Parts: sequence; C-alpha cells; structure tokens
Amino acid sequence: MSSHHIVRDDQEPALIIANGAECSSELLGQLLEWSPYVIVLDSAIERVFDLGIKVDVLLGDFDRGFNPEYYTERQYPLEIVYAPDQEKTDLEKAFEFLIEKGHKAVNVVWATGKRADHTITNITNIIRFKDELKIVIIDDHSKIFLLPKKFEKWYTKDSIISLIPIGDVTGIHSKNLFYPLENDNLTLGFRTGSSNHVAEDGMVIVVYETGNLLLIESFD
Amino acid sequence: MSSHHIVRDDQEPALIIANGAECSSELLGQLLEWSPYVIVLDSAIERVFDLGIKVDVLLGDFDRGFNPEYYTERQYPLEIVYAPDQEKTDLEKAFEFLIEKGHKAVNVVWATGKRADHTITNITNIIRFKDELKIVIIDDHSKIFLLPKKFEKWYTKDSIISLIPIGDVTGIHSKNLFYPLENDNLTLGFRTGSSNHVAEDGMVIVVYETGNLLLIESFD
Repeated sequence: MSSHHIVRDDQEPALIIANGAECSSELLGQLLEWSPYVIVLDSAIERVFDLGIKVDVLLGDFDRGFNPEYYTERQYPLEIVYAPDQEKTDLEKAFEFLIEKGHKAVNVVWATGKRADHTITNITNIIRFKDELKIVIIDDHSKIFLLPKKFEKWYTKDSIISLIPIGDVTGIHSKNLFYPLENDNLTLGFRTGSSNHVAEDGMVIVVYETGNLLLIESFD
Repeated sequence: MSSHHIVRDDQEPALIIANGAECSSELLGQLLEWSPYVIVLDSAIERVFDLGIKVDVLLGDFDRGFNPEYYTERQYPLEIVYAPDQEKTDLEKAFEFLIEKGHKAVNVVWATGKRADHTITNITNIIRFKDELKIVIIDDHSKIFLLPKKFEKWYTKDSIISLIPIGDVTGIHSKNLFYPLENDNLTLGFRTGSSNHVAEDGMVIVVYETGNLLLIESFD
C-alpha cells in the first residue's frame, strides 16, 4: 500500500497503528500516502501485514507468547523494539520512542473501538505528551487532539466539534461555535462541551486558561 | 426477541439502547431475556425495529427531520418521549426519565463505538447519577460502572479489570488485584489503573476516599 523507497520529509507526522478496532482502508490509505514512519503495536502486526503495509518498527511487550522475530522474516528490514514496562501502555511507549528519535508529530489509528478501557486510556493519555509531541488520534468517525491554550482553525459550517475536558478546564472562550463559551469552565463527567458545531464557514477560535482540553471533530 | 406479556419484577434493570455501535445479538439477547423495560434513543429505533425488538419508549429530540409518529404505527403501544433540551444528551435524558419513573437500575447498550465524543461523554456522564440510578454500560468487549466507595465482587483469576478515575480519585486500596493499590491516587490522563487483573479466584475489594472511580471489566 505504501512504498518507503523515497526520501522522507521529517515534517511528515509518523503513524502509529495501535491494537484496537481497524479503520476503513480509505482512511489508512490516506494516512500512508506520504510514506510516514510506521510503528505497529504488538500483535496488531498480524492484521497490518495481512493488509500489505510496509512497517518500520514493531513495538510491544510481546507478553502473550508471541514471537516478534517471526515477523522480521516476513519483512526486512523491520526494527523490533521490546518494551516490557508494565506501568505504561504500548501506545505510551511508542510516543516516548518517537520523542526520543526527535519526531514532532504523530497520527494514531486503531486506538479506539473494541475494549473501552483501552479507548478511554488512549484518548486521555495524550495530554501528558503535550509539550513534546503533536498527537492526533483518528478513526472513521472522529479526530481527537489536545488543544493548545489558543487554538485557531478554519472549519465549514455545521462541522461537529466537541470540547472534552480531561479533569477540570477553566476560562474557556470560543468564537464561531453554535453554542458559544464565554469564560466557561468544563468538568469531565459533569459539564462537557460535547456535540457543539461550527456556526459559519470560517475560523473557529478556542482559548482556555488552565487544564487540558481535547477537541474531537466528528463525522457521522 | 422478547415478549412483554408478563408481569415484570421491578427489580429487573431497565435497558437503554443508545445510538452508537451495535453489540452482538448474543449480548442483546441475554439482556432482553428477562423482558426489561426498553428505552430506545432517537434514530436507533430504525435499527432496533429491524431486529424485531419490542420497545416501551422511544426518546429523543428528533432533530433530524425524523417523524417518531411513524413508529407508533409500526408497534403499538409505544410511548414517545420528546426531549428537546440541547444542554443534555439523549442518554442523560433517558436516565432522568427512568429516575422520575422510580427505576433503580439500568443496563445501557450501543453507547460506545462509532463517534468518540459520544463514547467518552456517555461513559463519563454516568457519574452524575450515582446516588439515583445504578448504571452499567455494556458492549461486546467491556462492562463499565461507577464504583461505590466500597466495592466487593467475586471474580475468576486473570479477569481483566481497569480502574479509571474521572478526574482525581484519592485513597484507593485494593485486595486481590495483580497490581495492588495501597493508598494510591489516580488522575485521568496522568495515572490510571488500566489493564490490571485479578490475582486469584475470589473476592476483589476496592475502596477509595474521594472522587469518582469507574471499573471496567474487559473481554478481548
């Protein structure tokens, strides 16, 4: 699906393929189009090879009696990164590996769906990398990222946008959202800004003072 | 799939069928077996009727030009509850409707998968009903509920259990978890108790002091 025999632009985000529900082949194809650096987590490698995708790194704790060396025989070169730390998820280890290698941005697919514990942990854990790596989690219905303290982006009218506070977020102001926020506070579980939408074609601005605020773009 | 022509035991949890990804027909069949009181959210009714399920209530804001009256012709009796409040999700409105009618417990399916904003909002919003309604969100891979301040349940060895704090949770102690907690604090996005498991067949005990702690039982 992707050829890696080109010189890479280091500005291109890396791609992590995690071990949750698969996305559409269209979405995966778009993300592979510019030949990103591809990391696959643990036993997802089996499904990824079945799709004919060229992989750079296979990372995991390989704790289910699975032999990563077998995969180096199926694709050469393939870097195997054994990451046994039980205190961290494989996705966190992959973020740390990319930071270590100097990457600045990454898209993540297959990180949602299936087990709810993985979905909620994967989505919320991105906030701890905020100063080091620009992370976007993408699936067939959603695009999820942490907002900087001031966020601006052009959207078409009626685009569905949710603001999800991880914990408490204070001092939120928005421009060009249908349900505007004006010095509002949001608290996960009690008051979130789910299923808002864009008022008019144009720039959406969101600023906030304290906390960690995720933005989720949704597609039905 | 379910016959409602029996006298119901009011202790039986109600069932809400939300508008996310469908679960397996086996899981749905198990939940319908004891003829629960069934509420379907908004346009999910189309998929539910296609499965031949008898429904008690259709609840929603019906904001996409969809005519609920059409469904009363397809199944009689069917109570239509028009719930237009844009500040709340249809799932929250369904919880309030059940509380108002005196229900004490509810299972929720189709509340996860598809849009990530809905998934994370549905899972985390259950904490605000903690004193009024015992809520369990169930899908093919997970069973999610809020823990009381002291929780005890019998599990088999190796059952996968995650402790997910909604915000900050303090003073957590556990018994019979493989990675034990001893006066630990958890914070969503920074330190969670994801993918723990049961050490031995027997009672698992979790106690905590402040905050809201979800337990997720997972099945691969």
